Amino acid sequence: MNVDLNCDMGESFGAYILGRDAEIIATISSANIACGFHAGDPQVMNRTVKLAHDHGVSIGAHPGFPDLLGFGRRNMDCSLDEIRDYLTYQIGALQAFCTAHGTRLRHVKPHGALYNMAVGNASLVRAIAQAIARVDRRLLMVALAGRDNGHMAALAAEEGITLVFEAFPDRAYTPEGTLVSRHLPDAVIHDPEEAAARALLMVTEGVVLALDGTPVPLSAQTLCVHGDNPQGVALAATIRRRLEAAGVTIRPMAGGRDESLARDSVGAPPES
Amino acid sequence: MNVDLNCDMGESFGAYILGRDAEIIATISSANIACGFHAGDPQVMNRTVKLAHDHGVSIGAHPGFPDLLGFGRRNMDCSLDEIRDYLTYQIGALQAFCTAHGTRLRHVKPHGALYNMAVGNASLVRAIAQAIARVDRRLLMVALAGRDNGHMAALAAEEGITLVFEAFPDRAYTPEGTLVSRHLPDAVIHDPEEAAARALLMVTEGVVLALDGTPVPLSAQTLCVHGDNPQGVALAATIRRRLEAAGVTIRPMAGGRDESLARDSVGAPPES
Amino acid sequence: MNVDLNCDMGESFGAYILGRDAEIIATISSANIACGFHAGDPQVMNRTVKLAHDHGVSIGAHPGFPDLLGFGRRNMDCSLDEIRDYLTYQIGALQAFCTAHGTRLRHVKPHGALYNMAVGNASLVRAIAQAIARVDRRLLMVALAGRDNGHMAALAAEEGITLVFEAFPDRAYTPEGTLVSRHLPDAVIHDPEEAAARALLMVTEGVVLALDGTPVPLSAQTLCVHGDNPQGVALAATIRRRLEAAGVTIRPMAGGRDESLARDSVGAPPES
Amino acid sequence: MNVDLNCDMGESFGAYILGRDAEIIATISSANIACGFHAGDPQVMNRTVKLAHDHGVSIGAHPGFPDLLGFGRRNMDCSLDEIRDYLTYQIGALQAFCTAHGTRLRHVKPHGALYNMAVGNASLVRAIAQAIARVDRRLLMVALAGRDNGHMAALAAEEGITLVFEAFPDRAYTPEGTLVSRHLPDAVIHDPEEAAARALLMVTEGVVLALDGTPVPLSAQTLCVHGDNPQGVALAATIRRRLEAAGVTIRPMAGGRDESLARDSVGAPPES
Repeated sequence: MNVDLNCDMGESFGAYILGRDAEIIATISSANIACGFHAGDPQVMNRTVKLAHDHGVSIGAHPGFPDLLGFGRRNMDCSLDEIRDYLTYQIGALQAFCTAHGTRLRHVKPHGALYNMAVGNASLVRAIAQAIARVDRRLLMVALAGRDNGHMAALAAEEGITLVFEAFPDRAYTPEGTLVSRHLPDAVIHDPEEAAARALLMVTEGVVLALDGTPVPLSAQTLCVHGDNPQGVALAATIRRRLEAAGVTIRPMAGGRDESLARDSVGAPPES
Repeated sequence: MNVDLNCDMGESFGAYILGRDAEIIATISSANIACGFHAGDPQVMNRTVKLAHDHGVSIGAHPGFPDLLGFGRRNMDCSLDEIRDYLTYQIGALQAFCTAHGTRLRHVKPHGALYNMAVGNASLVRAIAQAIARVDRRLLMVALAGRDNGHMAALAAEEGITLVFEAFPDRAYTPEGTLVSRHLPDAVIHDPEEAAARALLMVTEGVVLALDGTPVPLSAQTLCVHGDNPQGVALAATIRRRLEAAGVTIRPMAGGRDESLARDSVGAPPES
Repeated sequence: MNVDLNCDMGESFGAYILGRDAEIIATISSANIACGFHAGDPQVMNRTVKLAHDHGVSIGAHPGFPDLLGFGRRNMDCSLDEIRDYLTYQIGALQAFCTAHGTRLRHVKPHGALYNMAVGNASLVRAIAQAIARVDRRLLMVALAGRDNGHMAALAAEEGITLVFEAFPDRAYTPEGTLVSRHLPDAVIHDPEEAAARALLMVTEGVVLALDGTPVPLSAQTLCVHGDNPQGVALAATIRRRLEAAGVTIRPMAGGRDESLARDSVGAPPES
Repeated sequence: MNVDLNCDMGESFGAYILGRDAEIIATISSANIACGFHAGDPQVMNRTVKLAHDHGVSIGAHPGFPDLLGFGRRNMDCSLDEIRDYLTYQIGALQAFCTAHGTRLRHVKPHGALYNMAVGNASLVRAIAQAIARVDRRLLMVALAGRDNGHMAALAAEEGITLVFEAFPDRAYTPEGTLVSRHLPDAVIHDPEEAAARALLMVTEGVVLALDGTPVPLSAQTLCVHGDNPQGVALAATIRRRLEAAGVTIRPMAGGRDESLARDSVGAPPES
């Protein structure tokens, strides 16, 4: 059994430091690196790509809305054309830093409002997949795991893109398999042991316990952890320890259908 | 005999339209496309790459300082590290649109203050060359032609990058072979026939007449024309007509040493 | 009889020129000046305040979302707190230029998506009024005229702010008194004589003819004209000519209840 | 005897937190609040004005270059016209938040590169004074204390503006009375007791000990302390304690010539 642990990184900007990237990097297998629209800047991107590459962590783009002031967390009424071009731009910018460090980009995970708006939104999922496909069809696309995994995967596949589904061990779920809103109490699980137990259940049984105790089937190939504060780093470390103790291998996401990608050594020289 | 005609393009931003890209494209062989820092945005970049590719015009990146408000024309006291990363970012972003349209980037010409600051500045020339080299060593780098062509070319070559030298048929030159400052009268030549005659002299004799009439040797492989107003477009068209009438072939820059690049069909599918 | 003619101005940014401010200024009595978020910059604001003041045109702030790339036309999911603070900031910035030129700000008209989102949105109308009130209660607030004029005016009045209602002579209306979406054909009236006839009907009868010919009551104290292209400028001039020929006085908006404001000479030295 | 203790505040931006404003506020008498160009945003400005006002701390604007990415620390080759308008804009924006909280702005201290570029630069000092004067002549302007205090004060006075001179208890000085560059070792004094002793010497004797032990005359009415880290906060508290123990009153800057300003209760309702 195996699973990927991913974390958002490279969210600093100029003089502003955000996230404990140097600490969380030891725990994860995939890094989602901000691309300068909602967070990150060229120097932060350069440093973060190097950090991930030095630790053998798979590198992904974490593109967002052009809203630094709102950290990309506010819905913006952009057209699908705009979103496609914003993604192309951000993915390309990060690719160049990967090339500079002798590695390549592996996945794309939309950030914040863009990620949330895509949940259950077929035309947005398709637009994101199109943007990724026109840059590099080998790039995996990360989306929230849920009941419509199959439908969304089929949409992305029509554009030539493999979807990888993501779950959140530190977030409460509804009996319908959706995330409990952060505005509600008990939306976030703070206890590392509880989060680790949930992660293990997700990986080994493909199940999450909803708020009311209902076991809900949930198929996810990557688990999201957080590095923005010491608690998040500790929680992530506990998750990794418990997973490995149970015999689960932590390795970069591969989309389930193309195992060669996971074996493909991250950090290989760029294609000639 | 041959020469390249290049023009800055893709300088619109959001609702703001700048430049007559759709007109000037018919006259030039290389387009320097803004990358979103001093001008341009993802949608403009997408449109402009398509426009250039559709017309068989070679595509280059036109990166600048992060100063949209000043259109990249103001000197900024950035470190060489910052400049390297700003260039990597912008080149990568434009590359992705080239990939999306099935072509590839051919050259990099710094914009505005960054271009001017690099004139005679060995460490800045080297930093720009390094940034280009770490993304793609096949990319040509454009710099102002002058007496120190040889020294600058050697610096760039040490980083693995070929310099292409540029001259301005519509600008007055000093007897030392430098551009007359725009703040002085007679700095700009407005008469299309005069500019065309100067272009022809540059290409066929490698000479520019200085303000005082002195013939100054000037070796340039690309001539810069302007598409920001109807006069610039007309002047550029006259230059092309006169050059072609004199038997000069207009074709994308190739740096003088690697003729295969010019023959390499622009618009070929991206390397697999 | 009297009415105000208002126009959005100062929408240039850095090297980007937008609008024929120097032409339209002769036709209008109120200028809505962009404040640097969706358009405008400090130098443009300075120039535009001077232009309006020199022509005896009343000055208003035209604040928008922090979205230069989208020209403030895209809905953004900002909190009411954020919107209040964005308005305070922009109004204050423009006030300083008014003070610098020895005049004062008279009104606030939200721009683009912010303006449209406020239509029929009581909590947003109230938030905008609150932001204005905390800076200067004498500032008039402009909103789209419609059936709920009375309700909206009451809301604003609770915050101490006078609402001024605006109509669009060059836009088609539905029988419900709302604007026909720009996405539909016939949404915009291009014929200057037709627009002028509609303006006259609005002012003299308080009526607009809907797309289906229904006369719809519409109470507006200010009419919006456009200066972004030569057609808009010509249309605005025709409207003014027709109104004046019919005995209508063009003068700055005064909210209907405080006539002293209209008589108060615009351009008076700032309050000591 | 009295002196002002000032600190840069309100430097957070969106999701990015910078500075321990809530801690340092108890120690200082003047807050220099960032205005959204190099740092700060409308919500941060609103919160910080409230914080200062609630603590009876005098409020000043801390305007900088439009360079969020560089935190306003990079020299930018802006024209004097641009700088005047950038200052007018930022001062006005902050004024509006002061008005909203029933207080008024008291001083302006340029930030970072703009502050440093003004040292010994007569035309820049004059331009800054002009920008301040056209908004409110009562606003004090803060500049680095040095040998040319008298000349600079005269320049500002010609524009109707009172200069207040600032010294840095935690920075080493040259025998010429200038700051030792941060790039050199020993440029910054980290020991709270040593910094406090230097502050006391500055206030009571008008002297600073240069790196080589030379006593250098230095006339300053305000001392700058730092709140960006716990050490800065502790150092500032020690300075205040030592000054007060020696009988020095900590009170807002007043420029030396208009004592009524210091007595004028900060937080009074805005002028009608």
